[in-house]
Amino acid sequence: MPDNLLLDNGQGVIDPDTYFETNSPPSNLNEYDEKTSEFVKYHGARGTPVVLITSGGTMVPLENQTVRFIDNFSAGTRGAVSAEKFLENGYAVIFMHRQFSLQPYSRHYTHSANGFLDYMTLNEEGKIEVDAKYAPSMTETLVKYNKARNNNMLLLVDFVTLSDYLFKLKSFTRIMATLGRSAMYYLAAAVSDFFIPVEKMAEHKIQSRDGALTLTLDQVPKFLKPLVSVWASNGLIVSFKLETDGNLLVPKARQALEKYGHQIVIGNMLSTRKKTVTFITQDSERVMSLDQEELDKDVEIESKIVPELIRYHRAWINHGTLDV
Amino acid sequence: MPDNLLLDNGQGVIDPDTYFETNSPPSNLNEYDEKTSEFVKYHGARGTPVVLITSGGTMVPLENQTVRFIDNFSAGTRGAVSAEKFLENGYAVIFMHRQFSLQPYSRHYTHSANGFLDYMTLNEEGKIEVDAKYAPSMTETLVKYNKARNNNMLLLVDFVTLSDYLFKLKSFTRIMATLGRSAMYYLAAAVSDFFIPVEKMAEHKIQSRDGALTLTLDQVPKFLKPLVSVWASNGLIVSFKLETDGNLLVPKARQALEKYGHQIVIGNMLSTRKKTVTFITQDSERVMSLDQEELDKDVEIESKIVPELIRYHRAWINHGTLDV
Repeated sequence: MPDNLLLDNGQGVIDPDTYFETNSPPSNLNEYDEKTSEFVKYHGARGTPVVLITSGGTMVPLENQTVRFIDNFSAGTRGAVSAEKFLENGYAVIFMHRQFSLQPYSRHYTHSANGFLDYMTLNEEGKIEVDAKYAPSMTETLVKYNKARNNNMLLLVDFVTLSDYLFKLKSFTRIMATLGRSAMYYLAAAVSDFFIPVEKMAEHKIQSRDGALTLTLDQVPKFLKPLVSVWASNGLIVSFKLETDGNLLVPKARQALEKYGHQIVIGNMLSTRKKTVTFITQDSERVMSLDQEELDKDVEIESKIVPELIRYHRAWINHGTLDV
Repeated sequence: MPDNLLLDNGQGVIDPDTYFETNSPPSNLNEYDEKTSEFVKYHGARGTPVVLITSGGTMVPLENQTVRFIDNFSAGTRGAVSAEKFLENGYAVIFMHRQFSLQPYSRHYTHSANGFLDYMTLNEEGKIEVDAKYAPSMTETLVKYNKARNNNMLLLVDFVTLSDYLFKLKSFTRIMATLGRSAMYYLAAAVSDFFIPVEKMAEHKIQSRDGALTLTLDQVPKFLKPLVSVWASNGLIVSFKLETDGNLLVPKARQALEKYGHQIVIGNMLSTRKKTVTFITQDSERVMSLDQEELDKDVEIESKIVPELIRYHRAWINHGTLDV
């Protein structure tokens, strides 16, 4: 371990309840709780399966009046693409994403080399139009997007900070619990492992002087534990493990399954996450990859991940187990 | 100072040269150098004043294969709005911005509650169109954007990490130095004060265990010094100071002017930065604010900042001093 990273194993980790007691909920929580309740009630009545997708990275402030923060790398591609695939397969989607991260459908036009206006042009009458070279595929995408919105199949909820994320995750999963086994939880967000407790945080912008800055971060409580055992006990819970060291991938995924008792971990490597993932369940382990032909055709691996998860979910709904 | 923040004053700060020797330049530096040289040559020949605007925050990786990083809060609003005002005033603009931060003109449609596709609609023939309620103002904006692009008045360059930013800043300012006093440097980017030197960085994703994580960050070298004294010695250099503690604003701005010997610091507070700024020069100090009427009309303070800077720049070009 490099000399700038020290792990103080003397110090324990607070439990989730303590975290919620010592942090305040986001101001828009009630508003989103209501939307989520309505959405869940609507689809519960129709027997539509509902998936909660978390997507993008959480931000951890280093200062109370935040100028600096620690962030996790995630454009939100996995979550945004997966949301489209779930929608195509008849799922209602609660898309809980980092503000301004990639969103289903619009992802094709944001975070690209093109700026917003580069897709537009002025016609002879000087009226704005979508540039002809983008119009056909954009029309297709808009049709799908409108279908999802008009049929009330897609609920968009955003978060920014770690605490924002955790309060919403707890609240939404408990609301979804009423759906029992027909709820799926697809936890693709890149959630911080470390944070600075409010009481230890600098009130004002950290001043730089000659010298080094030492930050001590506490470990984030393990929220998967109450999520699996209490908040969402009946749903199918899928978590992700992102690693850069291939040797750690499966062991750490297994560790998570044993520790939290949920059903599926999808392991992926930072460098190959767009073409290879590993499905790890209590008693199986399966690598899923795109072959060269699929890569050449720009097939997205989520188009294989999601149908596979839906198969698992059917088994879960019908039998309360994955292996049938 | 809270107990999680320790400043080790025993350790010094490396100088900029050492930084450049121990870090590698971004892969796209040569490509952007060429574009910048052409742009500068083009406008130099026409006597058009050129401003380099830096905008958005720099990212500091905590790991070599980056999963986590420290970031600075900045959507890039100040830089993006200012770019529009400089263009309206006949300046050629090199807009050096954090990837996916706000950009001139397109800023009106990104980072909003609307996603990309929410601006679009399908007409009777099922053809995609810009929604009628956005079309008029979007047309206006597109006209301005096209004018800037078609007249070669706007060069967009992006960066992500601190080192990406610093290598480009050094290279571009040296290229612009050929313009002498008719070059302005408008350094609005939120640049990290601390970083982890490559050799001290964790190779793989930092593993979380029970316990706290301690990160030791070195202070970023003071690049304004060589920028002012060597890279861009003849241009008008405007730097920004963002603070959350009002008592520190002017003293720290004065400190910067004395330390680096440039011409103007624009001080702003995190909470009021969109309606009040303070211009600090070697021998003057001036608060500039929007009154309630202007705020109600959504006047942007950059529409006051930029013309004021242009007045200063004229004096600088004609007399090599700000006070005439």
